[in-house]
Amino acid sequence: MYKIAILGASGYTGAELIRIIYNHPEMEIVVLAANSKAGQSMENVFPHLRSLKLPSLIKVDEVDFDNIDLCFCALPHKTSQEVIKRLPRQLKIIDLSADFRLRDPDIYEQWYGNNHQAHDLQEEAVYGLTEFYRTEIKAARLVAGTGCNAATGQYILRPLVKQGVIDLDNIILDLKCAVSGAGRSLKENLLHSELSEGTNAYSVGGVHRHLGEFDQELFKIAGRSVNIQFTPHLIPANRGILATAYVVGDSNEINKILSDRYKNEHFIHVLPLGETPSTHHVRGSNECHIGVVPDRIENRSIIIAALDNLTKGSSGQAVQNANLMLGIDETCGLNFVPIFP
Amino acid sequence: MYKIAILGASGYTGAELIRIIYNHPEMEIVVLAANSKAGQSMENVFPHLRSLKLPSLIKVDEVDFDNIDLCFCALPHKTSQEVIKRLPRQLKIIDLSADFRLRDPDIYEQWYGNNHQAHDLQEEAVYGLTEFYRTEIKAARLVAGTGCNAATGQYILRPLVKQGVIDLDNIILDLKCAVSGAGRSLKENLLHSELSEGTNAYSVGGVHRHLGEFDQELFKIAGRSVNIQFTPHLIPANRGILATAYVVGDSNEINKILSDRYKNEHFIHVLPLGETPSTHHVRGSNECHIGVVPDRIENRSIIIAALDNLTKGSSGQAVQNANLMLGIDETCGLNFVPIFP
Amino acid sequence: MYKIAILGASGYTGAELIRIIYNHPEMEIVVLAANSKAGQSMENVFPHLRSLKLPSLIKVDEVDFDNIDLCFCALPHKTSQEVIKRLPRQLKIIDLSADFRLRDPDIYEQWYGNNHQAHDLQEEAVYGLTEFYRTEIKAARLVAGTGCNAATGQYILRPLVKQGVIDLDNIILDLKCAVSGAGRSLKENLLHSELSEGTNAYSVGGVHRHLGEFDQELFKIAGRSVNIQFTPHLIPANRGILATAYVVGDSNEINKILSDRYKNEHFIHVLPLGETPSTHHVRGSNECHIGVVPDRIENRSIIIAALDNLTKGSSGQAVQNANLMLGIDETCGLNFVPIFP
Amino acid sequence: MYKIAILGASGYTGAELIRIIYNHPEMEIVVLAANSKAGQSMENVFPHLRSLKLPSLIKVDEVDFDNIDLCFCALPHKTSQEVIKRLPRQLKIIDLSADFRLRDPDIYEQWYGNNHQAHDLQEEAVYGLTEFYRTEIKAARLVAGTGCNAATGQYILRPLVKQGVIDLDNIILDLKCAVSGAGRSLKENLLHSELSEGTNAYSVGGVHRHLGEFDQELFKIAGRSVNIQFTPHLIPANRGILATAYVVGDSNEINKILSDRYKNEHFIHVLPLGETPSTHHVRGSNECHIGVVPDRIENRSIIIAALDNLTKGSSGQAVQNANLMLGIDETCGLNFVPIFP
Repeated sequence: MYKIAILGASGYTGAELIRIIYNHPEMEIVVLAANSKAGQSMENVFPHLRSLKLPSLIKVDEVDFDNIDLCFCALPHKTSQEVIKRLPRQLKIIDLSADFRLRDPDIYEQWYGNNHQAHDLQEEAVYGLTEFYRTEIKAARLVAGTGCNAATGQYILRPLVKQGVIDLDNIILDLKCAVSGAGRSLKENLLHSELSEGTNAYSVGGVHRHLGEFDQELFKIAGRSVNIQFTPHLIPANRGILATAYVVGDSNEINKILSDRYKNEHFIHVLPLGETPSTHHVRGSNECHIGVVPDRIENRSIIIAALDNLTKGSSGQAVQNANLMLGIDETCGLNFVPIFP
Repeated sequence: MYKIAILGASGYTGAELIRIIYNHPEMEIVVLAANSKAGQSMENVFPHLRSLKLPSLIKVDEVDFDNIDLCFCALPHKTSQEVIKRLPRQLKIIDLSADFRLRDPDIYEQWYGNNHQAHDLQEEAVYGLTEFYRTEIKAARLVAGTGCNAATGQYILRPLVKQGVIDLDNIILDLKCAVSGAGRSLKENLLHSELSEGTNAYSVGGVHRHLGEFDQELFKIAGRSVNIQFTPHLIPANRGILATAYVVGDSNEINKILSDRYKNEHFIHVLPLGETPSTHHVRGSNECHIGVVPDRIENRSIIIAALDNLTKGSSGQAVQNANLMLGIDETCGLNFVPIFP
Repeated sequence: MYKIAILGASGYTGAELIRIIYNHPEMEIVVLAANSKAGQSMENVFPHLRSLKLPSLIKVDEVDFDNIDLCFCALPHKTSQEVIKRLPRQLKIIDLSADFRLRDPDIYEQWYGNNHQAHDLQEEAVYGLTEFYRTEIKAARLVAGTGCNAATGQYILRPLVKQGVIDLDNIILDLKCAVSGAGRSLKENLLHSELSEGTNAYSVGGVHRHLGEFDQELFKIAGRSVNIQFTPHLIPANRGILATAYVVGDSNEINKILSDRYKNEHFIHVLPLGETPSTHHVRGSNECHIGVVPDRIENRSIIIAALDNLTKGSSGQAVQNANLMLGIDETCGLNFVPIFP
Repeated sequence: MYKIAILGASGYTGAELIRIIYNHPEMEIVVLAANSKAGQSMENVFPHLRSLKLPSLIKVDEVDFDNIDLCFCALPHKTSQEVIKRLPRQLKIIDLSADFRLRDPDIYEQWYGNNHQAHDLQEEAVYGLTEFYRTEIKAARLVAGTGCNAATGQYILRPLVKQGVIDLDNIILDLKCAVSGAGRSLKENLLHSELSEGTNAYSVGGVHRHLGEFDQELFKIAGRSVNIQFTPHLIPANRGILATAYVVGDSNEINKILSDRYKNEHFIHVLPLGETPSTHHVRGSNECHIGVVPDRIENRSIIIAALDNLTKGSSGQAVQNANLMLGIDETCGLNFVPIFP
């Protein structure tokens, strides 16, 4: 059994890591840390975990990493880089924050506002989109989990950009995002009274930070800048991202490329042409469902992807990457059937 | 007091008409009809109306139209045309169905699948988008209420198409629609268990019937075909439509045109450039809020509109039109403050 | 037009007061105060009010009460008493906090933990349950709005306790409460992620503060202590309280007593024996619906009441009382038809 | 691998059985039947199962039971008895309907309205409340899954009735039930528009059919009639039952009895005295959480239990029983961590 530490266990992605790893046949949680709740039991912080035998929360500084095989870091960005740069340099780490997703310190500062504290680690880190960085992740010491929105959009776009079958200057991504993506933070707009029974856009106009990832990754694939339009909307649900992509390109070709690209991917399911997915049908699972529909306008296509932001969008992805880093079967512990209704 | 009949009072738009008209200072509900529930009290069909003094439901054929000043017809399409063509020819009628929105019988048949039974009335009917057909509505005998999605989208697009400030071949409308728009019909996908806690697209690819209205109306304004892309999504909420439009055009110019166009419109509110609306903030009201944001890509703009599909999107619009047809102040009885939370 | 001030206008009951009063034919909002948001426009604090012409928020200390006819105080308890004791002594005031509900300073301290700062006002204040204190309210200068749960339960219990038809030592009140009752405060358990899709009890075992009101009021009626059991539950909805009362007594008699008691009350509707109400059917209105059902066990009855906590449970009640205090028709401005769905 | 058939696989309990059994290390789904959807793929009926390799649906009459080790029957009551009486008499069966819960045919007819068609099987069947019928279930051929509400209530009441520590003539059970308990049926009150954002009681007054189970089981334990009061309420959530019991008895004693009774039960967790559970914290799991709180009135206690109606309340219970019947470890395949948020 590989010994696992989770730093930042008091947030939603931390809790989701515990949900996944607790029943993982090759992993064992030995350390849970969260500075603000240190000293508390997990049952106290997350009563849904009350039946589990789990270590109590300690401070990050109190963690003994000597016998840890792999460490998940589910801390907020900025904090994450400060913590990780002080961790043992041979420790395998998966960071779920935004801190190591971007390779370029200037671009990082541009999107996140702060000067990065660990440039060497930025260089070292591997981008954690499993299906596209599998080889690098297997060999990596530090993997940066992707943004949940960035993952959803890239599952649609990467194969199409690579094959050059869509107009790179006309890509629109309209996202519908459940609220758990915003974390457990106390903000007025996350209150039930403010959020249920309605919807609104946020970070409109190309200012959402996950665009940094799109820019970086699509540039790498295309060999040129690919500036997509990206508008997230908050929907009154707890889990799930639905990404609706509007592209210029042929639906049959697009559907074939996506189907071929993902036909051997265990967690990515491309639907028959004309069918579309729903976030209802991936909840609690590590699956991503993708559907392609031709528009009535020639050579325009709508491509829709659905995944659970807490699972395939963050903690499930993280465990999938951990499996690779530890030499375990990639799908191990991740075959949750979606929970419906 | 004008005497009002409502045909099809057992559906959500019927109930919303009652909610609005019951307190209207110049209107009085004297007839409520609904064939499937004839003989029942409204309290039985809609217990939230139990404290109101309302006539019981009768069959449409039993209605005596002699002393009716205006008749709202909230029947399903196809039924609506069959009923309306048999009504007295001098009766003022507002139809909330899709039956008289399209002028061309062939286009109607193309979108709705059935041969239209009242071509003369199709010709006579005035399209009920109040702010753009005010003069015609005042003089009309038969007004066709617009589709709720069609109204939301047109509030964004009409002034821009008219002023020629956006690329007419690159208009994308991504809608997030609450479930009451689907009516009170017993369909599996409308069950709480199937719909809550998630989202999905429907009628993807340019097959939603409201496109017929967009095509007709935008053609009239532009003098050429304007084929928009239009994808509705079902969100887990009961009221509200949020339309996110992606256009090619300058945000400052767009914002100015919309602000100018609507500055004297009582119910349409254009927000300061960069702000965006929410369906939470129009619930239960006859308001439409519109916000414009520049994208990071030059000359691309995102325009978002929010309204309550049952109020401004159908029954509120209908009463606003009825006010005009009866010579009452247009806003009379419609100044509901949005209900929040 | 009576000139109205609202102190504490940045909370939900403040916003609901504005929703109601804005269209009130005899009242005009001239002052809105909220210390924490002073200087902001109401549109900024509550965007759903953006189309209304409203004064900006000022500090409570900045309010000129000289030409105010009536002041609503929607501040938190403890703050409320400190503010109100400094207000002009001839000013008509309706307090929506808990500060003047309890007559006995010791009992107040016992439930609320702080020493009351305005004993004379505690004595002067009239308990604001309109249907039972109508005469006193008409003559009052200071009226204390009731707790929303306390109102719902008392509508069931008061007539029964008075008539002596139920066992006073076996009264159980199980409440299902929507979340807006908790206000706009930033608490983890009020986040959408924590609250939607589930339910739980709170303040279990007779520790909910509204019990102070039940104790005081039922004692007055019965001439002896009447200790009820009272358990509120938080349900994933924004508005509404459903109170399920379990009593020992005959259903026919109970139904008759309640029907008789409320038959002339404009806002209270007693359903036919055997029918039960729903919070869905009172949303946004000032109505309370009550239903009585006999249990299969002889002489046991279940009585269920539903109201909207923000309207009949607080701000609607407050305006109803204000009407009385100002000599206006009691129902004026309050005939909202419930909003459904 | 034991070969499993599921009859009635097109409903929610059927889908939940698939979710659980698909990853069960000792079971394999070889037959899925549902007459109304025979010929369809499961992906078509339940798109959330699209990534699973599952047999297509066939008619019940087409099932070859020869190599089936155990058959789950998730059909509606009445249909269930007709199907099961024609199944091979040596086949192990777990019925999830109400058809074999009641031993007495007259009582069955009284609650369900129809004459029972398989009296001998009624006698043979074992009541499926695992923790209380473990020995009998191990030896049983036919096990009747309990009502989900009946299970929740009995987890609270059985040990207390047995130990004689509560007044048997004063037991009130107030339930808050999520909507999936009503199944996938097309009923108006189950529509999202009708159900979300509010709550109401149903089957009030002792007419809910699960009372037949309470009567039967509590009589057996007490040796006398124990007529509880039982009122279910529909809450706007998809999974979960919260049962609030009001009893006359000492909380310390009650808490000790429950703690002792369940301390070795893997799935039942009794909280420390004074703490209460939430349906949020058991979602998707086979757990039941129970909390006891003393009321302020002496010798009165409130006991609250929470479970997921589709898991511990039906399909999880069924698999737990199947494990026993097949000689597998009772908890095998059932250790789902609750999914939160």
